Amino acid sequence: MAAAAPPPPPTPTPIPSMTLPENPAANSIFFRIRLADASDVPHIHKLIHQMAVFERLTHLFSATEESLSATLFNSPPFQSFTVFILEVSRLPFPQDQHSTNPNYPPITKFVNLELPIEDPEANIFQREGDIVVAGFVLFFPNYSTFLAKPGFYIEDIFVRDCYRRKGFGRLLLSAVAAQAVKMGYGRVEWCVLDWNINAIKFYEEMGAQVFQEWRICRLTGEALQAYGN
Amino acid sequence: MAAAAPPPPPTPTPIPSMTLPENPAANSIFFRIRLADASDVPHIHKLIHQMAVFERLTHLFSATEESLSATLFNSPPFQSFTVFILEVSRLPFPQDQHSTNPNYPPITKFVNLELPIEDPEANIFQREGDIVVAGFVLFFPNYSTFLAKPGFYIEDIFVRDCYRRKGFGRLLLSAVAAQAVKMGYGRVEWCVLDWNINAIKFYEEMGAQVFQEWRICRLTGEALQAYGN
Repeated sequence: MAAAAPPPPPTPTPIPSMTLPENPAANSIFFRIRLADASDVPHIHKLIHQMAVFERLTHLFSATEESLSATLFNSPPFQSFTVFILEVSRLPFPQDQHSTNPNYPPITKFVNLELPIEDPEANIFQREGDIVVAGFVLFFPNYSTFLAKPGFYIEDIFVRDCYRRKGFGRLLLSAVAAQAVKMGYGRVEWCVLDWNINAIKFYEEMGAQVFQEWRICRLTGEALQAYGN
Repeated sequence: MAAAAPPPPPTPTPIPSMTLPENPAANSIFFRIRLADASDVPHIHKLIHQMAVFERLTHLFSATEESLSATLFNSPPFQSFTVFILEVSRLPFPQDQHSTNPNYPPITKFVNLELPIEDPEANIFQREGDIVVAGFVLFFPNYSTFLAKPGFYIEDIFVRDCYRRKGFGRLLLSAVAAQAVKMGYGRVEWCVLDWNINAIKFYEEMGAQVFQEWRICRLTGEALQAYGN
């Protein structure tokens, strides 16, 4: 993935879960959205740190691989904190343990890009073979009392720099929305910074309402600890 | 509770979980914050409807007792959607099944009021004996990736009209905060309308930060259903 020259075309070896194009373009890239598990924690940790750097909030970042491991993947998927991992590969994805996950059959497709992607961190984010982790979305159930229905709240959605502006963010958000519909849930919600005009426009194009009047309140740190007695 | 005249003083019969004042005032009222269960659904439904009326959002209200019953109390408390019920009584609370709830020993205290409370809906919100439901808070776990810790998100906090401005809202919020501290959680979060200056001032006095830059995005209704394919 780190090569500057165009990568070779995908090996034309169709696997059952995916139909290859008749004439795959030189810049085709395969991607997969799948449920994360404990083996993804090192990559999730690095992705969260990159997000903190991007948001200039590293002073608030205190997650470690150990603390993530202790708090994620303790419940069945979708019932509590849930992570979808976005992987990309120049080659079709192999049939592996993720392909047959009974809780979530992965979304596996390919996209034709105008230019090949140069990934300077491919070695850091590499999984087995040619597979590289490109992003993630972390979400969990929330609840609407007016609807008397659960929904999903998206805490984080992040795509690594070199994979942005190619539709992957939309795909991750759509995957959560599709899962919400599948489960009969009433809403998908998340937050955006009011000065991030491009993101707001993008979310509105995806069908979201952006609420101008609501503000988030947070009790944390010593102010929260004061309620411990 | 519906009497206009001052109620009689509380029966001075101390029970083990509570110490009575030496000279209980004529306007003393006992209150209890306890975990809700399925038997509370009719009252919770009425409280949510009152909240919708208060917020002038009845056009968004579609909850029924049946839909609440189907979606609440399916998980152990604090692991998913959780409700604390606020009850009041002129008499000390009896030792009942709530008193010994292993998941949450109720908070049971009394307050001295300047004037007696006239509750025109006491018969609608009555539980056994003299006990009347006065409010609720619904909350569920959320997650901070930066902290790698769960927290609680408060979806609704509501106190019936005649019980407002007596500190019960603060007590409900404090109960959630105390539970968060007890569980080692990192945050308690909720939302407030930006024009609700009194509420914002109140939350800030309780130690909360109010974030001005974040906006809530919501995908719901047909816009959400469109992701079902």
